[in-house]
Order: sequence, then C-alpha cells, then structure tokens
Amino acid sequence: MFRHTKHLQCEAKPEAPDALYAMKLQELIGGAYGEMTVTMQYLFQGWNCRMEGKYKDLIMDVATEEIGHVEMLATMVGRLLEGAPADTVAEAVKDPAVAAVVGGMNPQQAIIAGGGAVPTDSAGTPWNGKYIVASGNLLADFRANVAAEAQGRLQTARLYNMTDDPGVKEMLQFNLARDTVHQNMWLAAIEELQEDGLEGEIAPNALFDVENQEHANTIWGLSDGTAAAQGRWASRPAPDGEHELRYLDQPDPLGGPASAPPPDPKLYGTFAGPGGQGSAKGASKATKGGKGLADKVKDALE
Amino acid sequence: MFRHTKHLQCEAKPEAPDALYAMKLQELIGGAYGEMTVTMQYLFQGWNCRMEGKYKDLIMDVATEEIGHVEMLATMVGRLLEGAPADTVAEAVKDPAVAAVVGGMNPQQAIIAGGGAVPTDSAGTPWNGKYIVASGNLLADFRANVAAEAQGRLQTARLYNMTDDPGVKEMLQFNLARDTVHQNMWLAAIEELQEDGLEGEIAPNALFDVENQEHANTIWGLSDGTAAAQGRWASRPAPDGEHELRYLDQPDPLGGPASAPPPDPKLYGTFAGPGGQGSAKGASKATKGGKGLADKVKDALE
Amino acid sequence: MFRHTKHLQCEAKPEAPDALYAMKLQELIGGAYGEMTVTMQYLFQGWNCRMEGKYKDLIMDVATEEIGHVEMLATMVGRLLEGAPADTVAEAVKDPAVAAVVGGMNPQQAIIAGGGAVPTDSAGTPWNGKYIVASGNLLADFRANVAAEAQGRLQTARLYNMTDDPGVKEMLQFNLARDTVHQNMWLAAIEELQEDGLEGEIAPNALFDVENQEHANTIWGLSDGTAAAQGRWASRPAPDGEHELRYLDQPDPLGGPASAPPPDPKLYGTFAGPGGQGSAKGASKATKGGKGLADKVKDALE
Amino acid sequence: MFRHTKHLQCEAKPEAPDALYAMKLQELIGGAYGEMTVTMQYLFQGWNCRMEGKYKDLIMDVATEEIGHVEMLATMVGRLLEGAPADTVAEAVKDPAVAAVVGGMNPQQAIIAGGGAVPTDSAGTPWNGKYIVASGNLLADFRANVAAEAQGRLQTARLYNMTDDPGVKEMLQFNLARDTVHQNMWLAAIEELQEDGLEGEIAPNALFDVENQEHANTIWGLSDGTAAAQGRWASRPAPDGEHELRYLDQPDPLGGPASAPPPDPKLYGTFAGPGGQGSAKGASKATKGGKGLADKVKDALE
Amino acid sequence: MFRHTKHLQCEAKPEAPDALYAMKLQELIGGAYGEMTVTMQYLFQGWNCRMEGKYKDLIMDVATEEIGHVEMLATMVGRLLEGAPADTVAEAVKDPAVAAVVGGMNPQQAIIAGGGAVPTDSAGTPWNGKYIVASGNLLADFRANVAAEAQGRLQTARLYNMTDDPGVKEMLQFNLARDTVHQNMWLAAIEELQEDGLEGEIAPNALFDVENQEHANTIWGLSDGTAAAQGRWASRPAPDGEHELRYLDQPDPLGGPASAPPPDPKLYGTFAGPGGQGSAKGASKATKGGKGLADKVKDALE
Amino acid sequence: MFRHTKHLQCEAKPEAPDALYAMKLQELIGGAYGEMTVTMQYLFQGWNCRMEGKYKDLIMDVATEEIGHVEMLATMVGRLLEGAPADTVAEAVKDPAVAAVVGGMNPQQAIIAGGGAVPTDSAGTPWNGKYIVASGNLLADFRANVAAEAQGRLQTARLYNMTDDPGVKEMLQFNLARDTVHQNMWLAAIEELQEDGLEGEIAPNALFDVENQEHANTIWGLSDGTAAAQGRWASRPAPDGEHELRYLDQPDPLGGPASAPPPDPKLYGTFAGPGGQGSAKGASKATKGGKGLADKVKDALE
Repeated sequence: MFRHTKHLQCEAKPEAPDALYAMKLQELIGGAYGEMTVTMQYLFQGWNCRMEGKYKDLIMDVATEEIGHVEMLATMVGRLLEGAPADTVAEAVKDPAVAAVVGGMNPQQAIIAGGGAVPTDSAGTPWNGKYIVASGNLLADFRANVAAEAQGRLQTARLYNMTDDPGVKEMLQFNLARDTVHQNMWLAAIEELQEDGLEGEIAPNALFDVENQEHANTIWGLSDGTAAAQGRWASRPAPDGEHELRYLDQPDPLGGPASAPPPDPKLYGTFAGPGGQGSAKGASKATKGGKGLADKVKDALE
Repeated sequence: MFRHTKHLQCEAKPEAPDALYAMKLQELIGGAYGEMTVTMQYLFQGWNCRMEGKYKDLIMDVATEEIGHVEMLATMVGRLLEGAPADTVAEAVKDPAVAAVVGGMNPQQAIIAGGGAVPTDSAGTPWNGKYIVASGNLLADFRANVAAEAQGRLQTARLYNMTDDPGVKEMLQFNLARDTVHQNMWLAAIEELQEDGLEGEIAPNALFDVENQEHANTIWGLSDGTAAAQGRWASRPAPDGEHELRYLDQPDPLGGPASAPPPDPKLYGTFAGPGGQGSAKGASKATKGGKGLADKVKDALE
Repeated sequence: MFRHTKHLQCEAKPEAPDALYAMKLQELIGGAYGEMTVTMQYLFQGWNCRMEGKYKDLIMDVATEEIGHVEMLATMVGRLLEGAPADTVAEAVKDPAVAAVVGGMNPQQAIIAGGGAVPTDSAGTPWNGKYIVASGNLLADFRANVAAEAQGRLQTARLYNMTDDPGVKEMLQFNLARDTVHQNMWLAAIEELQEDGLEGEIAPNALFDVENQEHANTIWGLSDGTAAAQGRWASRPAPDGEHELRYLDQPDPLGGPASAPPPDPKLYGTFAGPGGQGSAKGASKATKGGKGLADKVKDALE
Repeated sequence: MFRHTKHLQCEAKPEAPDALYAMKLQELIGGAYGEMTVTMQYLFQGWNCRMEGKYKDLIMDVATEEIGHVEMLATMVGRLLEGAPADTVAEAVKDPAVAAVVGGMNPQQAIIAGGGAVPTDSAGTPWNGKYIVASGNLLADFRANVAAEAQGRLQTARLYNMTDDPGVKEMLQFNLARDTVHQNMWLAAIEELQEDGLEGEIAPNALFDVENQEHANTIWGLSDGTAAAQGRWASRPAPDGEHELRYLDQPDPLGGPASAPPPDPKLYGTFAGPGGQGSAKGASKATKGGKGLADKVKDALE
Repeated sequence: MFRHTKHLQCEAKPEAPDALYAMKLQELIGGAYGEMTVTMQYLFQGWNCRMEGKYKDLIMDVATEEIGHVEMLATMVGRLLEGAPADTVAEAVKDPAVAAVVGGMNPQQAIIAGGGAVPTDSAGTPWNGKYIVASGNLLADFRANVAAEAQGRLQTARLYNMTDDPGVKEMLQFNLARDTVHQNMWLAAIEELQEDGLEGEIAPNALFDVENQEHANTIWGLSDGTAAAQGRWASRPAPDGEHELRYLDQPDPLGGPASAPPPDPKLYGTFAGPGGQGSAKGASKATKGGKGLADKVKDALE
Repeated sequence: MFRHTKHLQCEAKPEAPDALYAMKLQELIGGAYGEMTVTMQYLFQGWNCRMEGKYKDLIMDVATEEIGHVEMLATMVGRLLEGAPADTVAEAVKDPAVAAVVGGMNPQQAIIAGGGAVPTDSAGTPWNGKYIVASGNLLADFRANVAAEAQGRLQTARLYNMTDDPGVKEMLQFNLARDTVHQNMWLAAIEELQEDGLEGEIAPNALFDVENQEHANTIWGLSDGTAAAQGRWASRPAPDGEHELRYLDQPDPLGGPASAPPPDPKLYGTFAGPGGQGSAKGASKATKGGKGLADKVKDALE
C-alpha cells in the first residue's frame, strides 16, 4: 500500500514559462525511458521478486521514489505551460520566437490537458506497457534497469543543454544525480547477485550443458567491415570466464534452404503441387515426420 | 547494401508439427525482446554509430546475423503449423490434446498468414519500433544490448523447456549459444569502450560537475522494507569508483507542494480564483517570474 | 444498413485556409474523444443493446448522426489545407506567421493524404478501438457517453478560442450545441433508466449483498492533504441513498505482505530457496493449499 | 512524494492456483478500465488540478489508494500462477480441465514474466496512456471517473462470477465495495462542484451564448427506429434546466455538399480540372476567399 | 450525412452459438483487412476525393455499404456468443469441446462487452487508423482497395471453412460475393481512370522525366536464388509499355559507405574525434558543404 | 542468411543539413508505406511462399534490396541532422527560417537518437507489424505489393517537391525509379501468376460455386450521388470475364432487424426481460435453435 505527501521530492519551479520546452520534457515523463517506465518497471519487478529481503526491498524503495519523479516532471510541465498561447495565432506570431513556439508546441497539452502534462513522450506517442520488463530473473532485470537509467540520464543530459532556465536546470541537476546513483546502484546489485551466488555472468545461469558448444564462442563476420576482428573481445577470455570469443570471417551457413511446407488447401496459399512448375519438392521435407502432439497424447492416454 | 543466401544460418526443422508451440514461439520473432527487435536495434545503432572502425563493424556484423535469426524462426513456425486444424472444430476436438491446441492456437497464423509466422509476439501484439533504442552513445546502447540478449536468452530457455521436439530443441540449442556469445561480446565491448577511454562507467560520461553532488550517492528508503540497507551496495565504493553509496531511511522531501498554476480562462480548467474557497494562492507562485522565451528573444533582437 | 446523402449535416466552410489549425482540428476527428470515437462507441452500443425499444433507437439515432460529424470535420480539414505549403521551405518561411505554420503543420496531411484529413489526433496518434466502450450495461455505458460528450465539448470550446475564422467558428457553434444536447440527453436517459427500474445509481445493480460492507462507505485518506475530509461528500448520505460516506485519515492496511510464490525452476526466476540468504519463507504461504482447477474437474468427472 | 508499506491494502490470497483465471484477471490490471488506468488518471488529474483544497486532496487520496490496487491484483495473479504448466504439453493435457488451461492461459505470463503479472489486459494488449484523461476541468473529469468506476465494477462483477475460489472472491468483494464507494464519491463530488458554484450541469460551463441555439435542443432521428421519440427525455426539461429536448424525425441536412478543394498539383491528387469530365466546379468554392493566416499576420506587422 | 435502417443488409443468424468461432470472426470486424478498415478507408477516400462525379459517388456508395457490413458481423458475433460460458470453469470443462471453447474463447467479449463484439481483431489487437489509406490519388488508392478486398475475401474464405453452421455459412456466402464484386469493381475503376486519361499505369503519373532512367528497368538479384531471372517479367515489355524490365545478377552497390556525421558534442554520441583510434574521417564528409536552410532564407531576405 | 556490405545501394549525401526535412523524410523510413514496411512485408512473404522457384526468388531479391533502402534513408536522415540546433532556443530563433526549424523539427531525433533516424514516421508514430501482410496467397499479396509501391512512389514524389537540395533530390530520383520498376514488376508478376494458371483475377481463386450468385454482380447505390451508375464499370463485363457488374439504385436491405440476444444474467447487461417495457421479443429468436458446438462433439464421441 502507498502513501503520499504533497511535497515534491525536489523543487520543480521554472523561472519562466516555456511551452516549447514543455513539449520536449514530455520525453522524460512518458517516453520509452521516461519516469513512467522506471516507475512501472520497478513496481512490477518488486511485486514479481521471488525472494523476500534486500533485493526486493531495494527494488520497492526505488520504485516508490520514481512515482515521485513523474510527479516532479508533471508539475514542471504544468508550470512551463503557464500562459502558453491558447488563443488565435494571428496576433501571437509576430516575432520568430513566438512563431517557433506556436509551431512547435504540443497542441494536446492545451486541447486535452488544459495546460498540463500528458502521459506521452515528446512526439505525442502514448506510454505503453511494453516499455517495461519484469522477468523474475534479477540479473536479466537489473541489466535492463542499468540500461534504462543510462538512457534516462543520457536524455536528461541532452535536455539539460536545451534550456537555460535556472529553475529547470536546478531540477535536472537533481535528476542527473539520481540517474548516476541508480546506475551505480544497479551495477552494484549485479555484483552482489553474483557474489551471493544467485546468478552468474550470463542470464539465465542455466542450460549451458545443452547449448550448442561449437557456436557459443564465435562472432560471425557477416558485414564486410573487417575491423571487428581487431577488437580485444576477439582475442581474450570472455567476461564470463568460461568462453574464448573468436571472430569468423564470412562463415558459411549451417542449415538447409528456408523452405515452407505445402499449404493446407483450405487456406488457399498459392501452390503448384508436386511436379508443377513451381516445384515444391524441397518443401515436402520441411518436417521430419515424427509424431505430432495429438499422437503423443493419445499414446500417453493408452 | 545486403545480400541473401537461401540457406538458413542453422537448421530449423521440427520432428513434427505443433500448432500450440508455434504460437508460443512467436515471442522470439515479434516480442519486445525477439529477433525483430535485435535486428532493428543493431541496424539502427550501426547506421547511427559516429565512428568508423571496430565498434561499428561489430554492430553491423551482429545486426546482419540477426536478420537471419528472424528467418530461422519464421521458417520453424511455418513448419510447426503444417497440418494445423484449419477446418471445423467439431470433429477435431474429440481428444484433450487437440482441444488444447484448438483452444490455444493463434487464429491469425491461419486466417492472416495461411499457416505461417506473423510479425507479432505470443499474445498477438504487433512488433513496434518503440522496442528498440539507438542513441548514438555506445555505452548506453551496449547496455541495452546486454539487457536484450539476457532477456532473449531467458525467454529462449523458458521456451526450450516447453517442447520435447528434438528438431525444435536442436535449433534452440543454437539460439541459446548465440545469446551466450552475444552477452559476452557486448560485455567485452563495454570493457573495451572504457579501456579505449571513450566512455566511463556512467552514461553519458558528462555533466558530473553540474549534477547535484549532495544527491548523487544516496539510496532513498521510501518503502518500509529495511533489508535494502544491508546490501553491500550501501557500504562500499560505487562501481564508478567516484561515489560512496549510502542508504537514507525515510528521508524528508526536499521540494515544495506539487501545485499547478492558475489555468488560462480560455481553457476552462475548474478554478475558484484568488480568495475563492478553492484557494489558489500557492499556485500563483508556481513560476518565479523570470522572463519567458519570447521576452529573451526580443531582447536579443534589439 | 446505412444510407448517405452528400449534404453535410451542417456547413463546414472556412473563410480562408489555415494549415496550422487543420492540424489542431484533427483532435476532434481522431482523438480519444473525437467524432470517430463517439461514432464507433454508439454504433457498438446500439448493436450490443439487449432490449429493443426506445433506448436502442436513441443510441442508433445518435450514432448515425455522429458519422456525419466525422464527415463535417474531415471536409473542414480538407478545406483548411487548401494551398498549404507543399513546396520547398526556403521561399516560404520569410515571415514569422508562415514559419509557424511550416514548423507546426502536420506533414502527414500532405505526405499521406495529399492535403486531406487523416484518422489521427492532433499529435498524429492513430485512432484505435480501445477508445470506445460498449458493455451491454446501459447505465455504465451512458455514463461513459456523458463523459465523452463533456470532454468533447471541452475540447471543442478550447479549439473555438484558437481561431477567429468566421466559417470555422460557425461550424463549431453547431458542434458546441450538439455536445450540449447530447450531454443533456444522456443525463436524461440515465434518469429514465432509473425511473424505469432497469438500473440503479451504482453500476451494475448487483452483488451488493456480497460486497464487503465494511469497506463500502469509507474514503481512505492516503495523501497528507487533509481538506478532503471537509467535503460534504464525507458527511451526508451517498447519492445512491444506501451508504454514508465517511473519511478515514491514514488508515492501516488490511492485508499481509505482498509476497510472490517460489518460481517454477524451469522459469529461472532468481530464488535462494528455503534457508537461503534471500529467505523465501513468506512466499511459500502465498496460496492456501486448496485444490487447483484440475483437481476439482477430476473430482467432478469421477 | 510517495511512500510504500509492504502490507497489501487487502489480502490477496487464492485458495489454489488457477492459471486460466490469472489470464482473465489481467483485465483489472492493464485493461482500459483496470487499476493502472484509475491510478494514472487520478494522479494526472491531481497534478493538473488548478485549485488547492478539498478537490485536489480527494483526488490524490484516491489516486494513492489505486496504486495499491494494482499491487493487490499483481500479487493475486502471481499466486494464481503458482505451479502453472511451464513444461511440455504432451503429459499435461491428458484431461479436459488441464487442456483448457493449457490452451487458454496467457503464454506471456510464463515466457516474459516468469509466472507473474504483466502490464496488459486479458487479451494481452499493453496498457497505454490514451486510456486516461486529465483535462483540468473537474466536472468533465469527475464524469470520466464515474464512468471508469462503473465499468470497473461491472468487469469486477463479471469476473466474480467466473471463479469459485474463496480467496479470490474475498478480494473481489473488497474491490466491489471500493468501486461502489468511488462511484458514490465522484457523484457526490459532482454535486459539490455544482453547489460550490464552480461548475454547472454541462461541461464546460461556457460559450452557451455563442453556441447555435437552434440546434441545442433537438435529438435528430436518423435511424428508422421510432421508439426514441417516446422516451421522456423528448418531452420534459433537460437536466440542465435550461433546455427543452425534442425529437426531430428524419430532419433534412443543413449544409452543402461535402466537396474537397482542388489539389495542389505537387501533391498529385487525381483531378480533371475545370471543364474536365470529373467536374470540380463545386470544389472551387470550398473556401470563401478570406485572407489566410499569413495575410493577417502581414497586416498586423505593418 | 447518414441515415440508418434497422434491417441488416443480409441476414446474420447462426443456427447455434459457437463462442470459439465468435472469437475468430472478430478478424473480419476489427482486423487490418476487416470491415472497419474498408468502411473508414472508403469514407476518407470519398471525403478526400478531388473531383465531383462518378468516382466519388462510387466510393461513397461502397463506403456506406461497408458500415452495414460491420453491423452484420457485430450482430453475428453477438448471436454466436449467446449462452457462452460466463460462469466458473470447473463444471464447464468436463468434455473436450467445451474445454477448447473455454480455453480459446476471447475473454474480453464477456468481460468488456457482456457477450458482444469488440472493435478488435481475432487476437484482441484493437483496430487503428493506420490500417487505412486515402491519398487523394485515385490510382494509388484503388490499388489499395483491390488489395484490401483480395485479403478480405481470402480471410473470409478461410473462415468459411472453419465452420459448418448453415446460418454462418449463408452470411459468409453473401460476404464472399460482395468481395468478388468489389474486386471486379475497383479493377474496372482502375481501367476507367486510365481510359479517362486521369491516371496511367504507374502512380503517380509524374516525375518520369526526373527519375533515374538507368535504374528504372532493373530487377536487382541480391538473393542467391536464380530462378527470378526466368520469369517472363525479365524478358518482355513492362506493363506500363514504357520500360523493359531486365534482371541484374548480384550487381555492385552504387553508393559510398554508410557513414554518419560527427555528433554534436552536446548530444554525447560516442566519438573519438579526428586522429582518434575510432577514426571518423569518412564521416566528416557526410554532407557536401552547401548552404543550410537558414543560410538560404537569409539570402532570400536580403 | 544475410550478408552486408558497407556501401550504400545508392549515394545518400545532402548538400547541406536540413533538420525540418529530416523529420519529413521519416515517413519513408517508418511510415505505413515506408521502407521498413516493404522490407518486412517482402521478407515474410518470401519465407511464407509455398513454392520454390521464380516467385519466391523474386520476392527474396526485392526484400533484400529493401533492407538497403532503409539504410540509405537512415543515412540520409543522419546527415540532414548534422548541426541541427540542440542547444537553447533563445539564441537560435532570431530569424524565421530557424524558428520554423526549431518549431517543426522532431525532438526525438535529438533526444532519443542523438541526431539520427528513428523507426517512426513523420508524425513520430512508431512502425508496427500490422503494416505488413504475407498471406501465402501470391495474388492477394502481389496486389498489396503494387499498392504499397504506388503509395510509396506517391509519397516519395511529394517529398521530392519539398526540397531543393541537389543531393537529396539525387537520391530520391533513384528511389522514384525503383518504385517505378517495382510497380511494373509486381504487375508483371500478377500477369504471370495468371498465365501460369496459378491464380485467376479474383483472390482467392475458390468458392465461386458457393458464393451468393445473386449478389456477386451488383453495385449497391446507397449514397445519393447518382453518377456512379454512369461509370462504364456498370455496363460492361467485369475484369474477371465471369461477371456483369450492374448498378442498383437505393436497394432494400435483405436481412431482418439487427437485434442482439438476451444477455447472460451474470454479465449484467441491461435487460427488461419478456413482457417488460423494453420488449426483448425479437432478440429471443436471434439464433435458430440448432445444436451448439458442445452438443455436436458429444454426438461425435458417442
């Protein structure tokens, strides 16, 4: 269960309105790597965490903080939109700066939100649930978290350079710092997962015995750039300590042709049939002829 | 420019059809962490890479390989669907296994694709461009790549356990191996970026001087779980070697109330006005009263 | 079945083109509360209405009118785009007004539609079927209809202030009036549903006997603002005449911890197991140990 | 800023797992009227509320509660999935109940979430930001809130009948009660807005003087059902006390033909031109010939 | 403006309910090539048609018919869902047929629509506005219409084989016939466009003089299948009568390397700079050094 | 499997940057008819092609070429963005041209991609898998391909007129030529399908015997425009040589009323019941009373 205080985690007060910047700042609210994403990603990871204790508690701490970041940004956007032109354009656009604003501002912040933030990114694309991941595997998820915080800090840094409003810059200085902490923190948590023996270097820490050993070390050179072979990644032990990466230049494919089986006649796929000029011979061997699912269940039932 | 050979990178031949599994395997084609995602993510990263040389070449090598992985999986799905029930249901569902298949199979693989793969995930959600990231910052992007390969191997491993078809398992053994290589490879490439002095531990490697130092080390404890403070992440140097993470238990907020400014009357936000019972006093100080964008441009023009 | 006349329900002729406004007006065509939404919402409600008679007939009357509203707006947008700059920018942008238009106009209206309306909102987001609801419960649906007409009139009013073109204003004056009628009409229809004894004040009019009585009256105060307790909603009978709303200030949670069960090992969730440092003890009691679905069917089959 | 306690607002413990039901329950998490929707809708409404005081505090109270409802449902789904078949199908589907589960369960809950909840609805469609509205006009928004709670309670009631698990039913009895409270509460808040003189019966409470009076009372009968005229809505004062609704049977259209202007030649719309067999005469009068936006700005600049 | 009669264009009465088929039939309502698509595609094409007369009238005739097809299918789906299991599963799934239905039916048709149709396809993906095209160029659009009717008839034919309900088959026999008419009709309309001299064989009928003549005839052989050269398309005049298609086997690329320019330092793209080990030399020539847009406008203003 | 060369199929070097045009050009990358669409459409069609030989080889040749077109356009966009304003706005917008650019440029190309292309269209809508079709029926698919190339050439032609940069124009001259070839090629391939006896004029080439003959020739005149009857399509043999199209002016509907069956009480649809004022009499005959799916399976099992 959650509780809320009216105070913002950090102040979010611009010196002056800037409707054009309010549109750009939406990226940090509803973008793929915005605060709605880390909020929901960490909440679902926390609820889906399979162990009580320090990892789960850490996830829930940060998840709860991130809801407050959405709040800070939504507040900032509302304030940046104060006094934005909501009137007819003709009077407004007499000078270039206003023209840029009028041309570039997000009309939905006025039409839909009455001068407030919307749950979309800076191009107006609505936030959606596919932006997040919560797999239950903490190594895989913490890596996604490091990646999200890295993209988030990168976007924040870019936006930092796009304004000279001291109030906006002050808030973003806080956000940059939090993104630094959180990158460090998830990196440290990955180290700890490994030190605690819960996960290794490769996610998931399983099925190494069945995976195809012959192809677990090779980088396939399929583009004609040759410099890839010069990276030290191709000449020393892999980070997991178990493999030796090496570079194959223009290797041959291993499989047969990519044919498709003959179509069910009731699905009306174009097909010449055996002996036809289209020649479907290869296709007829698409499957190896073993028993299908239904056959196996019948066997089991007998 | 690209070229294509008809041979699959690795064989993709099931022993027998299995329409239910064909639906699940869609996750690896058009899911958020499926092969369409890594294909497009690496292609756009390669095209957006700002340096000629080993990094760009590596990205393009792997990108080109991944197109072939979509091909392998699409071929496998087409073959798994051979002979799938496309007829009336009444005859088909006399035994439980077929009933499960009929109930669970993806109707669009028949209705739309005539027994083939579709560019969606295992729930039928279409693949979309927001699944990928190509920021131009290689540290941020390689971290996203490690995360993608980790989620990809995890999903492949889960799907590996959901079939006992030797042909499917054989292909997935190859895919597992490739996901292992690629995790190792992107981890090694991150090491190399740092050794080459191109990036540090935090992305982007900039703005550390302006970010709020006071808040660049602290984990905010905002959930009542206390075990988060016991992680070693809270008591030793951060991975970047520059910070000392520490845990704050239930810290106070730093900002003022999250108020919104008075609305433009022409936008019809509900508002009592000054002195009204709704009391908008706090809101009137939402911005600090500096010059807006238009004012500053006017100054500059004079 | 439907029939069409070429005449618009109401004239849609601007005095002069305005490409920037044509972009904004898209909100009323393909926005979440635009005319495509009410068209499809009312059509599906009509087709899904379970009673022949006045309610169904009313729904179909309004649904049919709304198709014509999409027509009016699409016609208006096409006319507002007449002569919009489709040429190179350099000549066009010599004055601020044109610059604003060139910067702000929707490029897809030219590139995709050749100077016509597109089925998207003012940010270019395509209309989608999730904008509508047709539940079969007329109280629930008529409330959604009142809400849609209210948001629709609000957006129309905002757009009314963003133009001074007499022809556009004339059409919007008609639209405002229709949105007023339709709000009144759906409100009246809700009254009638209740007077006819078909629905009550709460949707659906059922399961009051099983719902948790203890928690059917209380407003939970979970944010530190205290003014919510001063609303008269917290001190007099509820609108349904059956409940007495009252305010609980900072109540305690009722449930246990939000733990998740141990993962299936084949799904590779990170898990320390019993006795491990992660401590999954709480999780092991996540379910109460009753019979699962399969067990119950087996019992029934015996 | 937010804080979190590990305890659930209400217990969420099923008696036994039920993977098929876990798929259905997703509707209440990530559906258009699920808990993610009311969470985000109320949060953005609270942040966008233009008056400090009781309304804003109420919104934030309920918003904060709703985050906890997502938590309850996500926890319930994780527990319902305990022990769900993640293995090969052949052994599993020997009896009909398991076959139904295997066919009908959501594969993404296993493949993506490792046996947990996902931020999607019961058909696997991801939650998105267009599900919510926060317009700044409290009458319009509270009506959307009543509608959301009505649809939410309706869906909860339907799901209540689809299980006989006592633990699930117990949680849903709580949810039903909360949906009842919240419908009553938003209805009471609408009454209060009107009693406080902040809003009227029609949203927004403006532009009545300019809207087309002639068309502000009439229900247009455009479908051949005639019973709509018999509703009392067509023969007594409208709910706003200002209008008299009346029914027009098969009225004539008011506007001219829905023609489009001649296309810009550089956009290659098919067009015969004046005198051609296609006859574009009507179209040439599509606009009335007033000054365009650019002309008016030029005038203003002089 | 539109009018509606309650009678269906064609009867839509199944002999018996079939919830599993009701899910599949959704493809024809809200799928990419379903009736919502042709409805909206033809409506927007009609409104965007630039010539009064036979073409526009034809488009509006068919558009109006298609709204009625959505109605037929929505009615059919509602009737197929009569009596569908909305209760607990345990009792229901004692036999395989019901198990298949319970596993495979669309839960949203019950939970959201109360036993009715929803505006989605057979996988639950909501219909969206990007499914349609209305470019203003009638040749381009009529080709899209032929394609839509072809896919629509194909899907209808597949669904025809998936039921043996005489009532459903009777309706689909009507739909198949309409799809045949409409394919013929749009093909005839394309012929007429060409006979009327309005369009040619290639859309748009323009810019042939500027397009690169050298590359307007060649099929590039970039896959190692060689049979493509044997098609008669590679050895006789092209359909437009202006070109001679011919096959190039494994041609060389024409352009330089796909390099990207050096990044703006404030965007933090990874970059070694001139002389660095990353070597960005190629990139520095990415543009040819002409005047940018701003420069040209400045020139024009002087 | 695929291979890649660094050289572009055709040069993609602008004379000078133009950030506003870079936004527009996105339509050709990630738009519904952009290069990502034809890439994925042809790849899936090739993989789903049921006959080895010339058709499949042709599809794969063109698919492989199209990947290279995405590459050309992404390269062009990156170069057009060189030096785009990523800084504060105040200094930048002193002249109208820059103001237009600042207002109109795509902020995500900077914030997300660091000055590169994004997988979206010109309005920022992400590319998605529903843009493509691969049905297995080559006639239906080749028609979709002709339509895609026609829309693609049309959009390219419109964009050609929106720039005067010689380098951009040069690349688009190549693209226009390729779109001409590909339209000719798919048209020729349709001819060949028919000459080879694989497909006819109507897709699919089946079920003509069962489709409703009475309604396979008639164009229904449901809009009051009468010119549609004057098209030669209404007075001569249909393109398939089998039908005679004719025009019906305002025909009567063939079916009964569009009623819905009584709702399941547990789904809480509003319903008056038999004898109630709502009168559901018609609805009770919605289905004809035959055996449902479950009944028929039980019969079959006995």
